[in-house]
Amino acid sequence: MSNHPAVASKSALNPRNFALANCLRALAIDAVEAAKSGHPGAPMGMADAATVLFRNHLKFDASAPNWPDRDRFVLSNGHASMLLYGLLHLTGYEDMTIEQVRNFRQWGSITAGHPEYGHATGIETTTGPLGQGIATAVGMAIAERQLAAEFGDELVDHNTYVFLGDGCLQEGIGQEAISLAGHLGLGKLVVLYDDNQITIDGPTSISFSENVPARFEACGWHVQSCDGHDAHQLDSAIRAAKARTDKPSMIAMRTVIGFGAPTKAGTASAHGAPLGDQEAASAKEALGWTAAPFVIPSELLAEWRSIGARGRAARQDWEKRLAAVPVDTRAEFERRQAGALPSGYGEALRKSRASLFAEPKKAATRKASQMAIETLVPALPELVGGSADLTHSNLTRVKLIDTQFTRDIAGRYIGFGVREFGMAAALNGIGLHGGLIPYGGTFLVFSDYARNAIRLAALMRLGTIFVMTHDSIGLGEDGPTHQPIEHLASLRAIPGLTVLRPADTIETLEAWDIAIRNRRTPSLLALSRQDVPQLRLEAGDENLTAKGAYVLRQFGSGRDVTLIATGTEVSIAVEAAEVLAKDGLAVAVVSMPSWELFDAQPVAYRADVLGQAPRIAIEAAGKFGWTRYVASEDEVIGMNGFGASAPADRLYKEFGITKEAIVERARNLAKA
Amino acid sequence: MSNHPAVASKSALNPRNFALANCLRALAIDAVEAAKSGHPGAPMGMADAATVLFRNHLKFDASAPNWPDRDRFVLSNGHASMLLYGLLHLTGYEDMTIEQVRNFRQWGSITAGHPEYGHATGIETTTGPLGQGIATAVGMAIAERQLAAEFGDELVDHNTYVFLGDGCLQEGIGQEAISLAGHLGLGKLVVLYDDNQITIDGPTSISFSENVPARFEACGWHVQSCDGHDAHQLDSAIRAAKARTDKPSMIAMRTVIGFGAPTKAGTASAHGAPLGDQEAASAKEALGWTAAPFVIPSELLAEWRSIGARGRAARQDWEKRLAAVPVDTRAEFERRQAGALPSGYGEALRKSRASLFAEPKKAATRKASQMAIETLVPALPELVGGSADLTHSNLTRVKLIDTQFTRDIAGRYIGFGVREFGMAAALNGIGLHGGLIPYGGTFLVFSDYARNAIRLAALMRLGTIFVMTHDSIGLGEDGPTHQPIEHLASLRAIPGLTVLRPADTIETLEAWDIAIRNRRTPSLLALSRQDVPQLRLEAGDENLTAKGAYVLRQFGSGRDVTLIATGTEVSIAVEAAEVLAKDGLAVAVVSMPSWELFDAQPVAYRADVLGQAPRIAIEAAGKFGWTRYVASEDEVIGMNGFGASAPADRLYKEFGITKEAIVERARNLAKA
Repeated sequence: MSNHPAVASKSALNPRNFALANCLRALAIDAVEAAKSGHPGAPMGMADAATVLFRNHLKFDASAPNWPDRDRFVLSNGHASMLLYGLLHLTGYEDMTIEQVRNFRQWGSITAGHPEYGHATGIETTTGPLGQGIATAVGMAIAERQLAAEFGDELVDHNTYVFLGDGCLQEGIGQEAISLAGHLGLGKLVVLYDDNQITIDGPTSISFSENVPARFEACGWHVQSCDGHDAHQLDSAIRAAKARTDKPSMIAMRTVIGFGAPTKAGTASAHGAPLGDQEAASAKEALGWTAAPFVIPSELLAEWRSIGARGRAARQDWEKRLAAVPVDTRAEFERRQAGALPSGYGEALRKSRASLFAEPKKAATRKASQMAIETLVPALPELVGGSADLTHSNLTRVKLIDTQFTRDIAGRYIGFGVREFGMAAALNGIGLHGGLIPYGGTFLVFSDYARNAIRLAALMRLGTIFVMTHDSIGLGEDGPTHQPIEHLASLRAIPGLTVLRPADTIETLEAWDIAIRNRRTPSLLALSRQDVPQLRLEAGDENLTAKGAYVLRQFGSGRDVTLIATGTEVSIAVEAAEVLAKDGLAVAVVSMPSWELFDAQPVAYRADVLGQAPRIAIEAAGKFGWTRYVASEDEVIGMNGFGASAPADRLYKEFGITKEAIVERARNLAKA
Repeated sequence: MSNHPAVASKSALNPRNFALANCLRALAIDAVEAAKSGHPGAPMGMADAATVLFRNHLKFDASAPNWPDRDRFVLSNGHASMLLYGLLHLTGYEDMTIEQVRNFRQWGSITAGHPEYGHATGIETTTGPLGQGIATAVGMAIAERQLAAEFGDELVDHNTYVFLGDGCLQEGIGQEAISLAGHLGLGKLVVLYDDNQITIDGPTSISFSENVPARFEACGWHVQSCDGHDAHQLDSAIRAAKARTDKPSMIAMRTVIGFGAPTKAGTASAHGAPLGDQEAASAKEALGWTAAPFVIPSELLAEWRSIGARGRAARQDWEKRLAAVPVDTRAEFERRQAGALPSGYGEALRKSRASLFAEPKKAATRKASQMAIETLVPALPELVGGSADLTHSNLTRVKLIDTQFTRDIAGRYIGFGVREFGMAAALNGIGLHGGLIPYGGTFLVFSDYARNAIRLAALMRLGTIFVMTHDSIGLGEDGPTHQPIEHLASLRAIPGLTVLRPADTIETLEAWDIAIRNRRTPSLLALSRQDVPQLRLEAGDENLTAKGAYVLRQFGSGRDVTLIATGTEVSIAVEAAEVLAKDGLAVAVVSMPSWELFDAQPVAYRADVLGQAPRIAIEAAGKFGWTRYVASEDEVIGMNGFGASAPADRLYKEFGITKEAIVERARNLAKA
């Protein structure tokens, strides 16, 4: 089959697996050459392992990519995307045609440079930003266990497999995921580590010399090592990994990056650039590959297609089991998979609203958030939550979401530890898995740590709910390191994320309602540490927060000035407006819990709310971005720099976010 | 001394150390009680270890807090701030008066909730956001070794000590730091781990069950364990840690959080809230502490003050050694410590400018950045750099900054590995150490990963230089996960950060000049993957980038329209202006490399640059924030959502960031 000594020695180990793997290598070589960019080395190095996994182990049916009980496959080193596209094409996923593979990295194709969730079936999550794939997979494994506990093994019993490289292990989030998975004993999580000892900058020895297996062992993992080109070793290791159900498993596969490329294999030059005509040709020769570019010999393609159909019987058996469970169970399972809300949800919401109007409450919006969860969760068995070690501050725990998720109990409350980034990615993974609605809490300032996972939620159009409390200098004494200033602006800047900063108990309930209904958009709730009065007092069923902004109070008729505020500053604006009204000014107070939702309203509505009079914005945060609604940043009562350490009241006063400051500015504007 | 059994058993071990440690405990109890907020548990648990370290090992002189060769002490678990303030007060740092300690967490005090660099001498870095302290300390240890290699052990030979808790180890950045420090063999780094088995949410067993010593060992550390209340054990362990110079050392100290508090010790309730009157009184009783609040018995205070003076002789010896080195060496050392630029710098800059004007170059701004470093570095021996495994993409490596920093060689180029957050914090640490100017590179999109360290650079007013390449959809095929959209806005929103997005080789050189001169403000350079022409062609010495924005081209007289652009879009704006000029329109093209620098210019200058005519902004990024300069986001030629995977030219066309789009918009505006 091959005369190249390194290749020959490996190909002899299991010629059939090797031949199948060469289909993946050839497609990776061809697609990267055609695109004139991409990463051939990792697909070529991991092809043997991927073949063993898909051929012998992965439970899937290419004709039913969304089968809920399929094994999940996550390519955490997303730059190896051609490995995934090759697998999907070869096993027969309908949308992954050879044309798509030919159009790798081109406008309009489903074969982006990195795998993009939603572009093609079989892409379980978007990867590329390193370390997030494994952290997302941890969420999938958590979801699997929670749903298995709820619906039984006969409906939910699958593994989550992750391929990853050195980069995922160097990134801190990789360790957060490893530590959490080991702690929770996620025995159905199997990680295959592509130990090729090469990174972009050269040999990993430039920057990475730790004992990776020992690190995993220290974190409670079942660890094996094997030759990543030896199908028998790989098969045995995966088998042993599946058998070990009390611990997650890691298989360190010693591989050669760019396996088969005569001069570039095992070097950084195989990592992130096309091999080039000559090396590509030589590699194919060494591999014994004679087919034309993008052509898979029919006999090999047929075998790959049979691999794609290998799980069909299992899937059909599963469908029979689903059909056999009690009709209620089945209906609930299917509702949950579809992401539809339960019939009782609307009623729970109405009751919760009614009780707030019946008995208005002064409360911090983080407390209002806890009240909202508490009243909605009886109707929402799919809601699961947690916090990055700030449960008592975020108030993310409620009676029905109280049982801690541990290695023994698949509880609904997950203690993520001090791992904001890992938490956010895991929440995404829970959502991607399906069947559950995940939320998780930390301080708003630490959204920084989790930021790229919030971005990926938006990019993937996931309904992840981020509960971010202590949302301003109102946090007080902990000081500037803990006080968000630029965070609201920087989150509003993320396309496709809905940022909600509710003003009181009603708006907080409404924000939760929006977040729960938004199954294709992530929501981030910015909530206060400090108490605010309930400002909405007139009972009604309309979710005004869903309009993004609305006139909360109108003093006098017409408009001399409009005060726009968010969150805890709305009540200060109302107080200022009362003073201005006594001056005889006509003032509208606009509560604006969400810029994104407001900007999605019809032009006429927006014009009506904003009015023609001079406007002042009030928000205890940086002023950046407010010129979308006010004439200049001079018309923003907000922060010009970082906060300070002192009691909250003092900070509001010292930083000039006060009724008096609003009144003064409004009088000057109204005069002008 | 005490009747409380747990306390008595420990206090008997070394009564004198225990008595000194009780001063720290008492101050922590009193200050947290007075502030009615704060974290008493960690200071009480770590007091014995801190006493041993300061009493027997730390090389410092409280009367000379900025002595360059002092040991560095980093409190990575910054919520234990009262431990640090107590140490500084007791050892006699002049600014840390008892009044300041009494005003813990109050407006205007230097004793913020978390230690803030610059508030008080002896605070080596701002901590609180967990995990960053140790990562910053890694940078300090790197700087120490680089300077020792340059100036010799007689001037530079000190240790970096870090206290940290479980939180720092759960955070991913903690692992990035551990892995990097082990890889680089930073033998003068000593970490004391406060293993108190408690986090905010309860026992660490809720979320953390790994074998921490084994993880450190896997990463190449020298690891010891000891009783964190036993002064003899602590002393021996620190001694052994100092003796081991080929590996960083970690000492796992088993401690009791809130040590001495009769009912709260060892529980989460000692973590983040005052003990309360009664528990505080009982704790003092158990500790045998009878002095009034905030009063330190004179004999104990005297001993603490002698500890603060313990290093005086060593410091004076060091000063003698400094006085004895050749005058040039001394002058260079002192210049570097003062952060002054060398005399040859101005000339190197002028030459570099002149050569660009003499021979204009078309180049990607990342390439222009490399050219700038290359020409400036001969005059800047203090410049050290690196990349998070993207050296060949970021183009951060140049001839004189080429030697890799390894465990054996203190080279000027640091391979940070795929660890953006760890890199950013380490860069801050290098800057905090003094004597060096650090820069580091990654892709702009991965500023997300590093974001909170960039924030801390701004909060601390450090001159860290962040080199962020591939700054738009111009990155091309790697696709939306790798294309920054919201990043420019979200970075501009950070107070005190200077974001620079230069348009050509000249502006890139000017941006580097600004970044190098800015020793009290971090700079972030956003640089392109794709080529741009050199737009500035008229020779001159004025740094126009330093004005933030300026009229680069004026077509016709007066203004019918103003085009404002940044970075790679400036050349597109110029092309559009040329078309509009042919229409007979008077057009100004404003290049705006830095919003922050522009906003700092006099009103008249800004008004002049922006003009009275309608304005269009052009930037291949999200539109958020541009309303600071243009009437609405309709006047921004930019991105409305995420990017896509395709060649760069195609993306610019598909997303409508083209000469044609600018021309059309400008014609409509000029007509209106």
